[in-house]
Amino acid sequence: MELGHKPQILITNDDGISAHGIAALIAAAKPFGNLLVVAPDKPQSGMGHAITIHDPIRLSKSTLYSDIEAYACSGTPVDCIKLGMFELLKRKPDLILSGINHGENSSTNVLYSGTMSAAIEGAMEGVPSIGFSLADYASDADFSAAQYYVSRVLKAFFEKGFEPSICLNVNIPKGTKSQIKGIKICKQAHAYWADRFEKRQDQFGRSYYWLTGEFADLDQRKDTDLHALKEGYVSIVPTQYDLTAYDQIDKLISWENEK
Amino acid sequence: MELGHKPQILITNDDGISAHGIAALIAAAKPFGNLLVVAPDKPQSGMGHAITIHDPIRLSKSTLYSDIEAYACSGTPVDCIKLGMFELLKRKPDLILSGINHGENSSTNVLYSGTMSAAIEGAMEGVPSIGFSLADYASDADFSAAQYYVSRVLKAFFEKGFEPSICLNVNIPKGTKSQIKGIKICKQAHAYWADRFEKRQDQFGRSYYWLTGEFADLDQRKDTDLHALKEGYVSIVPTQYDLTAYDQIDKLISWENEK
Repeated sequence: MELGHKPQILITNDDGISAHGIAALIAAAKPFGNLLVVAPDKPQSGMGHAITIHDPIRLSKSTLYSDIEAYACSGTPVDCIKLGMFELLKRKPDLILSGINHGENSSTNVLYSGTMSAAIEGAMEGVPSIGFSLADYASDADFSAAQYYVSRVLKAFFEKGFEPSICLNVNIPKGTKSQIKGIKICKQAHAYWADRFEKRQDQFGRSYYWLTGEFADLDQRKDTDLHALKEGYVSIVPTQYDLTAYDQIDKLISWENEK
Repeated sequence: MELGHKPQILITNDDGISAHGIAALIAAAKPFGNLLVVAPDKPQSGMGHAITIHDPIRLSKSTLYSDIEAYACSGTPVDCIKLGMFELLKRKPDLILSGINHGENSSTNVLYSGTMSAAIEGAMEGVPSIGFSLADYASDADFSAAQYYVSRVLKAFFEKGFEPSICLNVNIPKGTKSQIKGIKICKQAHAYWADRFEKRQDQFGRSYYWLTGEFADLDQRKDTDLHALKEGYVSIVPTQYDLTAYDQIDKLISWENEK
């Protein structure tokens, strides 16, 4: 493992090592440090914070990115971070980057997102970590404005830093660099998926379901990530892994005496 | 779907529909309402908040639990909640229960846990949800003390209720009812897995890895779930899905102007 004077950056994503989004992230991050890429060998969207404990994990060297040490991993995005850190680097990197995701991970989507779970895993290990997502699901999505904002965010990080117990959830709206209005620091919007299941029959007459649904924004606040994206801004939400609802503790104390 | 006067309770787990823990939960919850069980058809530990979006999901009626409507699902614990709510019940249940997990889900394990992700999914839908875990991985673990505490928690819930935007992470220590000292309302402990990968060779000489490691408690506080469990108490952590690190927003505001 080459350890120069430049920061060591570990990169993953959840769309797989050959996705356009990770290529865009690699290109944007390259000037900032030594890159190690460990990314899933197949799409892993919606994997959340899953880890592989019932199956062995495979790791194979990839030649997709010239000059960049890269590995394809059979596991989840969180597995990729753990393998990159504990097996390949054998130390904590200076920075973890995840993405650029094909599709936005704003609001409660942060919980389903493999991209953001990789960044949250980094925070759990005390490593500054940033997840990037572009609000465009098209396979030929244009990542050039997103790359510009990756650079801006990395510059801000190396100048100012942030508390490594959190990670950043960066969502970039669809559009050109001149269409996007700037960066807003935001709160996670309160929204949810009104899910539906599309029921079909297979060739044997047995039922199966596809998960589908509509996203419902329930939040009236003007300082959320969903609101910023709608207004044409890049949203950054400082994201933590302490899920304790501190304000609810006192309300539950009487349960201690319930018989 | 039978809709009587009793509360409608939706039950899942992550160890699979035939695990001892879900049988114990079903038995303990039965006096409290009409049960609908939708649980994975195979173990899904460590699946976190994963959802199945690239594969169809199968659902098959199970006769494992007499008098109880039960389904085995090919998907994740979160899929089970979504299918139970949106496809089978066609309405929100009054309560979601998940578990009883074989093994504890205290501290940061809440993020990896399929059991707790099912409960968090319930909270995201505004349904009061409780995840139960027993700190015993043994296949012949004794769930009788855990069942007693499931009853106590359900009694407290039906008497007092709680804010449905949170869910409860209930961990029960190993031991008999007389050994366990009671219930403590707690905070999620700050701890992490110092992961290692065990590298092996398959029959073709190719490498593969098993994820392993040691759990490191970094928290000195006396009011955490890990501390309560060590002292012999059942821990209850009110758990939220808003991951915003509110106290970090002001520190990042200057990033909005970074060029």
